[in-house]
Amino acid sequence: MSTISIIGSGGMAAAIGGRTVKAGHTIEVISRDRSKAHALATQLDAGASTGTYGAAPTGDIVILAVPYSSAAAVLADYGDALDGKVIIDITNPISSDAASLVTPSGSSGAQEIAKAASTGAHVVKAFNTLFGPVLTQRGRLDAFFAADDPEAKARVSTFIESLGLRPLDVGGLHMAATLEAIGLMLIGLARNGAGSFDIALNVDIGTA
Amino acid sequence: MSTISIIGSGGMAAAIGGRTVKAGHTIEVISRDRSKAHALATQLDAGASTGTYGAAPTGDIVILAVPYSSAAAVLADYGDALDGKVIIDITNPISSDAASLVTPSGSSGAQEIAKAASTGAHVVKAFNTLFGPVLTQRGRLDAFFAADDPEAKARVSTFIESLGLRPLDVGGLHMAATLEAIGLMLIGLARNGAGSFDIALNVDIGTA
Repeated sequence: MSTISIIGSGGMAAAIGGRTVKAGHTIEVISRDRSKAHALATQLDAGASTGTYGAAPTGDIVILAVPYSSAAAVLADYGDALDGKVIIDITNPISSDAASLVTPSGSSGAQEIAKAASTGAHVVKAFNTLFGPVLTQRGRLDAFFAADDPEAKARVSTFIESLGLRPLDVGGLHMAATLEAIGLMLIGLARNGAGSFDIALNVDIGTA
Repeated sequence: MSTISIIGSGGMAAAIGGRTVKAGHTIEVISRDRSKAHALATQLDAGASTGTYGAAPTGDIVILAVPYSSAAAVLADYGDALDGKVIIDITNPISSDAASLVTPSGSSGAQEIAKAASTGAHVVKAFNTLFGPVLTQRGRLDAFFAADDPEAKARVSTFIESLGLRPLDVGGLHMAATLEAIGLMLIGLARNGAGSFDIALNVDIGTA
């Protein structure tokens, strides 16, 4: 088991944190507002700790569970305190009306976050296609991830598997743009539709 | 029931054509090589016809089932013979090594095809995330589509439903970029993995 640090105290921090605790990992919750971090840590696990915002987290994997619009500022606050860490970017970088992505053409939220992060940290895109309520209520969900560093990928894959999810490696960090486009599409479908549904992507190129 | 024209005689033309015939539609198969069109038409249905390449198709919906690299040239050959038609673009505009999309930044294959098509035609992106063998072997698959013209969207949605598939409207034609990114991702996953698998996208934002 590992120690996992979560920066953030919202719905996704709670949903991922819940699975993390169930998997037997030690958890540290960090927020700019320490009282919120303490409240989530207490809710998640009697043994969960509350970290100091801006100081080196105790976890080797750090889940950045803040809105995309705050992510770069948070990373600037941390500076090289995240050196050697695997940072999981879970954000959906979309406009407030959910009509479009807010990332520069040819880039992705994860790549922008990687630029804002210390060069000693490894950014992995994951969890952005999984909604909080789904993560909390369902079983072995499909969990895409994308990253450049092979060791960081392997560690996040193992972590995802430990949460009872199915890790699906979609490639390098540039593929985060695809995962973010899927996130936008799912939010759009949910808003246009019933708000809750499942979609299947069925793949078979063996005989194509 | 409708008349559906298919330009192309490959695996996807056969797979979509097979479902089209089963649904009771009348089908017309068109190819630059008329003997190939005739062979597919005969294979699909005793009542299927073979159209003349470049002449106005009989179907109100025309499925453009040629490789992306040929699509613009085919549309140039047709010119305004496609006026008033709904053109379904099924292409995956990817490089030969399946490593990347070949579309201009900020555009999509469907948008490029719409530029190459007669202004009197309506382009709808659909079927590109469905692989031929899956279409042939499975039941009620999820079928994304994207387009700008509301009437064209409604007709394609009805057509998809008639094929025993579940139509999922993901938005305007600009969302074709997302569907094409998903196509690339699925092909990548299939090549990295077992070649055949299912992925679930589970959506629930009702309580998020």
